[in-house]
Amino acid sequence: MEKNPVIQVYKKDSLYSYAAGAYAVYELLSARPEMVEAVYIHSGFTGAGHLESLCRDKKITVTRGDKAFKRINSKENTYAAASFRKYYGTLSSDEPQIVLVNPSDMGNLGSSIRTMVGMNIMNLAIISPAADIWHPKTIRASMGAIYRIEFELFSSFTQYRKRFSKHDLFPFFIDGQIRLSVNNCPRSERYALIFGNEGTGLPSELKNAGTTIQLAQSANVDSMNLSVAIGIGAFIFSCSNGRL
Amino acid sequence: MEKNPVIQVYKKDSLYSYAAGAYAVYELLSARPEMVEAVYIHSGFTGAGHLESLCRDKKITVTRGDKAFKRINSKENTYAAASFRKYYGTLSSDEPQIVLVNPSDMGNLGSSIRTMVGMNIMNLAIISPAADIWHPKTIRASMGAIYRIEFELFSSFTQYRKRFSKHDLFPFFIDGQIRLSVNNCPRSERYALIFGNEGTGLPSELKNAGTTIQLAQSANVDSMNLSVAIGIGAFIFSCSNGRL
Repeated sequence: MEKNPVIQVYKKDSLYSYAAGAYAVYELLSARPEMVEAVYIHSGFTGAGHLESLCRDKKITVTRGDKAFKRINSKENTYAAASFRKYYGTLSSDEPQIVLVNPSDMGNLGSSIRTMVGMNIMNLAIISPAADIWHPKTIRASMGAIYRIEFELFSSFTQYRKRFSKHDLFPFFIDGQIRLSVNNCPRSERYALIFGNEGTGLPSELKNAGTTIQLAQSANVDSMNLSVAIGIGAFIFSCSNGRL
Repeated sequence: MEKNPVIQVYKKDSLYSYAAGAYAVYELLSARPEMVEAVYIHSGFTGAGHLESLCRDKKITVTRGDKAFKRINSKENTYAAASFRKYYGTLSSDEPQIVLVNPSDMGNLGSSIRTMVGMNIMNLAIISPAADIWHPKTIRASMGAIYRIEFELFSSFTQYRKRFSKHDLFPFFIDGQIRLSVNNCPRSERYALIFGNEGTGLPSELKNAGTTIQLAQSANVDSMNLSVAIGIGAFIFSCSNGRL
């Protein structure tokens, strides 16, 4: 008899989390198979055969049946899921980075991760306090892109800067020095694009940390959604610096 | 005694909808005061005095008290709301447009509206079937930017094109002819940027409708979130064509 055939409701201090939905499960199996604890397949899942044979190849336990989904399917129906051991990576000193200072919303955090991966930036620094990167909601919003990146948590921006002193820093402020457009992007071999909390933005002391950037935008909105701002900023930097 | 002191749960066929949250209420009062039916203020709302005096200036009825929020506050707490009469606008023949073909998610639709307004594109054509633009969820995701735009619904792309024959059409496809970057944006005085459904993209017959565009992106993700793709596409077009 199996020890734990029901996927437990996620808790922040647990050593495990889970990916819900076939797309995220496949991303997990593809990018981090060594972290997978078990895969769960609901009777309503079409394509179970393919997923099962993939798990067999990777020697991953499969639990079939609807009971496993009892706890997690209270709100919406998920037909495939996988539990995995949380892990913490190491950022590269040479690659561009996204730095998120106190992101507070799991949906925004996940969506921002999906966006940065699309822009070919694979290193993420998060300054705490921050939304839980391992919460299933974050994972779902990332569409599984979370398994592709390396990320590290830091207790303060100073701690982060101690680790990575060579990056050119570009904090995004609504009144930044450079109004970023298609033809004026700073050139940099090693850039860190720094974004603040969704409600409050970056702390003002970061104005002196590097070259501040604002996104050209109309006067009709207060600000852009975090992942949209990251998308535009990262797109311009990645294209202008030969990484896309 | 008032006829209807409780905000009703939204129904698609109702003539009215409501804005929930102070930010959306202020946007509504600022952009479309003539459509407002009533403003509701919860006892927990700080800043009630300012909102009340604004309503007095605009001769709008205010209902104070928590009872009005009974129906709509089942999931999260809203302390200010306003009901308004739904309206349908008219797109300009000379301004750039966003065209959304069958957007299916209200959050994505609302967030896309916020994004296009930020990029100074104020005209939106929606091809049905589509998520309900007047649903409070769409309004909330738009952060009230919905009141700033003009939009029209069309039953098909052909219907849309009959009305607007002069726009240069740029359908966004994952394998579009132009891989859009910072230095190769088409010049156009009257452009329509066309985006498909979140899951299925644009119908392939639209490949012949204009110059197809793809966003430069890494091979590590399938696609971008709809509002992120609109943000990047509209940013590049607006900056490159002198509108931002």
